Amino acid sequence: MKLYTKKGDKGRTNIIGGRCDKDHIRIEAFGSLDELNSFVGYAISVIPEGDEFNDLATQLLNIQHELFDCGGDLAVTEYKKDFPYKTKESMIIFLEEKIDQFTNETTDLEKFILPGGSKLASALHVCRTITRRCERLIVQLQKEADLHPFVLPYVNRLSDYFFAAARVANHRQKISDIEYKRSAIVFKTKTSHEEQ
Amino acid sequence: MKLYTKKGDKGRTNIIGGRCDKDHIRIEAFGSLDELNSFVGYAISVIPEGDEFNDLATQLLNIQHELFDCGGDLAVTEYKKDFPYKTKESMIIFLEEKIDQFTNETTDLEKFILPGGSKLASALHVCRTITRRCERLIVQLQKEADLHPFVLPYVNRLSDYFFAAARVANHRQKISDIEYKRSAIVFKTKTSHEEQ
Amino acid sequence: MKLYTKKGDKGRTNIIGGRCDKDHIRIEAFGSLDELNSFVGYAISVIPEGDEFNDLATQLLNIQHELFDCGGDLAVTEYKKDFPYKTKESMIIFLEEKIDQFTNETTDLEKFILPGGSKLASALHVCRTITRRCERLIVQLQKEADLHPFVLPYVNRLSDYFFAAARVANHRQKISDIEYKRSAIVFKTKTSHEEQ
Ligand code: B12
Ligand code: B12
Ligand code: B12
Ligand SMILES: C[C@H]1O[C@@H](n2cnc3c(N)ncnc32)[C@H](O)[C@@H]1O
Ligand SMILES: C[C@H]1O[C@@H](n2cnc3c(N)ncnc32)[C@H](O)[C@@H]1O
Ligand SMILES: C[C@H]1O[C@@H](n2cnc3c(N)ncnc32)[C@H](O)[C@@H]1O
Ligand SMILES: [Mg+2]
Ligand SMILES: [Mg+2]
Ligand SMILES: [Mg+2]
Repeated sequence: MKLYTKKGDKGRTNIIGGRCDKDHIRIEAFGSLDELNSFVGYAISVIPEGDEFNDLATQLLNIQHELFDCGGDLAVTEYKKDFPYKTKESMIIFLEEKIDQFTNETTDLEKFILPGGSKLASALHVCRTITRRCERLIVQLQKEADLHPFVLPYVNRLSDYFFAAARVANHRQKISDIEYKRSAIVFKTKTSHEEQ
Repeated sequence: MKLYTKKGDKGRTNIIGGRCDKDHIRIEAFGSLDELNSFVGYAISVIPEGDEFNDLATQLLNIQHELFDCGGDLAVTEYKKDFPYKTKESMIIFLEEKIDQFTNETTDLEKFILPGGSKLASALHVCRTITRRCERLIVQLQKEADLHPFVLPYVNRLSDYFFAAARVANHRQKISDIEYKRSAIVFKTKTSHEEQ
Repeated sequence: MKLYTKKGDKGRTNIIGGRCDKDHIRIEAFGSLDELNSFVGYAISVIPEGDEFNDLATQLLNIQHELFDCGGDLAVTEYKKDFPYKTKESMIIFLEEKIDQFTNETTDLEKFILPGGSKLASALHVCRTITRRCERLIVQLQKEADLHPFVLPYVNRLSDYFFAAARVANHRQKISDIEYKRSAIVFKTKTSHEEQ
């Protein structure tokens, strides 16, 4: 059997448990997660040599596996007992821990920052915004289909993870984030002991 | 005459044989092919020095021309005899040959792989998934307009070409594709003599 | 307070002056400007060392600030006197000046060119086409909401700026743009004294 089957040449395709049009919002949603996954792959490929980013490299690779979990959960038309969902609450909690840790590693923030800096930081901002594009599509899909309830929170948290990770990348590479010069004070993320 | 005409500042624009809103699905479709074409340009720009990737470089440049052919065919409101379509069946057959050849050059695959690896492989996975985004938009356009019948199969095959090419890139750069660890056995692409 | 609030986990979110679904076209529009902004950040990160591109680097950084201005203007549900719009006509005029200057710096063009060349030029073409994606979304938003009238012309001009800038990048890096080989004569951009 060949990689290509030609069966999708008219515009319909297989999902898990059925068949649908390629422009169906379900395909749009998991297809965009696949696009995001590819950008995460690209971000990994621009990680600088050396041990300093071992943690990020491991986490990003794990996220690639998890994006497959999310995509797979969205590709199923109906929940079946013998085929359990793959996205776990523990994945969300792990992201939250890393966000808190990265937020503590970097300087406090009050204003929006320009999405950029090093190649790695820029690529992570690209990942952040594509994650948010995926989130918008999953919200749209959710209006017409029952979804596994952990996918949306995971994706929501993932964009905050990429934000925090992009800041850490610049910080470790001794690049200062540039504040948006006409920004209001928008962030309240003081570290816990300052907050009280 | 200047590059900018300001005539599109209200939201309408020219196509071949008419004028329409910029958010029309036709503009969305060929505009996305233009976006894809730019990413193919980027992928070419990260091809490593040396002769090893001459074949890929030539093919990707050809694909850039062919994406213009596809885009042009979608930009025409109605078929006119004196203005023939540019997308040819031979372009599809060429892609199929390359997919088969690349599939043979790489190891057999049973599980999904993480979209990543070298810079080039990652960029090709990005191309793959943006191609699929284009495909979804063309499927949507097809529901309300008569399209040249070769564009959709070309774009469908192109995403499989990018998949095969990304694997070849990693293979030639001695990078192993990483399997998605919770993947089922999803691929049936055994090389022909094993298949019988 | 933490970076993540979990309040958006169900699919709704805050804008300036209200709350709406995350898949609302307004969120789609400014979210895509944020994606574009990240790609501009990436383009900046691939600018070659040396003084030759100081002008471009400064301009691109300015554009990042201006994309926040545009995004902010789109994020407001209703105009309020005490909260003026940020996108200024002078920003559009500045882009036009740069487009004219860059067009004069490069060779005259008659045919479409392949979007590619150096890493920087390719990245600028990616920016160009994502700008056009944003434009399509703003046109869609405009059909249902009153928008600040300068945002759309700014974004329209910005895509032409990126086109001109991509050509300049290749030109200064001694890379020739490749013409689309089946292109008709589509451009009329002769420099003013030839035009008369
Ligand atoms: C979802 C999917 C994807 C997703 C991946 C999922 C994700 N996590 O995001 C995405 C979009 C990323 C993807 C990409 C690709 N895919 Co894909 N994909 C599929 C799909 C639809 C399901 C794969 C899967 O997860 N199988 C596991 C499931 C559980 O197995 P199942 O056999 O469908 O279901 C069994 C279940 O247990 C059960 N079942 C489970 N749930 C339900 C629910 C209901 C209601 C019912 C009735 C039954 C049921 O019934 C079956 C009994 O065993 C298959 C088509 C298909 N339907 O098999 C193609 C398929 C595997 N893909 C294919 C291809 C070609 C690709 C790409 C190369 C395309 C491209 N050019 O980009 C890439 C490769 C990506 C990579 N990195 O490796 C081909 C492979 C062809 C071949 N020669 O082998 C397939 C077979 C599609 C096809 N052409 O028909 N894919
Ligand atoms: C718009 C927006 C964005 C836009 C940026 C704007 C742009 N220019 O494109 C985008 C999409 C880029 C963005 C991104 C992010 N954002 Co944001 N963003 C906002 C938002 C909605 C407004 C921020 C702003 O401009 N404030 C300035 C305005 C003027 O202040 P205001 O308090 O809303 O309004 C006052 C006005 O003067 C007045 N007003 C003005 N106009 C109007 C109109 C009407 C009709 C009315 C009644 C009142 C009114 O009323 C108020 C009285 O002072 C806030 C949520 C919110 N509503 O505050 C989140 C917010 C600041 N963002 C947040 C976050 C987390 C992020 C991201 C990290 C998300 C991510 N993972 O990507 C990124 C960071 C980006 C970066 N590079 O730094 C969080 C911060 C949480 C925290 N812990 O502090 C907030 C608070 C959202 C939330 N969770 O509730 N964001
Ligand atoms: C399609 C198109 C694109 C597509 C390219 C096509 C593709 N293959 O994907 C895309 C989206 C990529 C594109 C991009 C750009 N474009 Co453009 N594009 C056009 C468009 C609509 C057609 C160009 C074309 O193919 N012409 C060839 C055709 C065959 O010629 P024609 O004169 O339209 O038609 C003749 C036909 O023979 C016949 N005809 C053919 N079919 C039909 C069908 C019917 C029903 C009828 C009645 C007649 C008819 O009638 C005519 C008689 O000779 C023109 C606007 C226009 N309508 O001409 C702009 C145009 C050429 N683009 C323009 C611009 C500025 C750009 C960009 C720089 C924009 C940007 N910032 O990104 C980029 C440059 C891209 C590059 N890499 O070089 C401008 C150039 C302005 C100038 N100063 O010269 C134009 C003129 C649009 C405008 N402003 O009015 N473009
Ligand atoms: C930070 C701000 O970004 C907006 N917001 C929230 N979720 C998304 C998304 N998926 N895509 C784009 N914008 C989003 C909201 O307006 C929020 O307040
Ligand atoms: C491999 C799987 O990818 C899905 N699929 C098929 N075509 C597209 C596309 N253009 N975009 C996203 N997903 C697609 C189908 O579900 C197919 O079975
Ligand atoms: C150069 C050609 O590109 C098309 N065009 C104009 N604006 C956009 C946009 N935002 N996105 C995609 N295509 C566009 C029109 O058809 C124009 O004539
Ligand atoms: Mg969020
Ligand atoms: Mg396909
Ligand atoms: Mg325009």
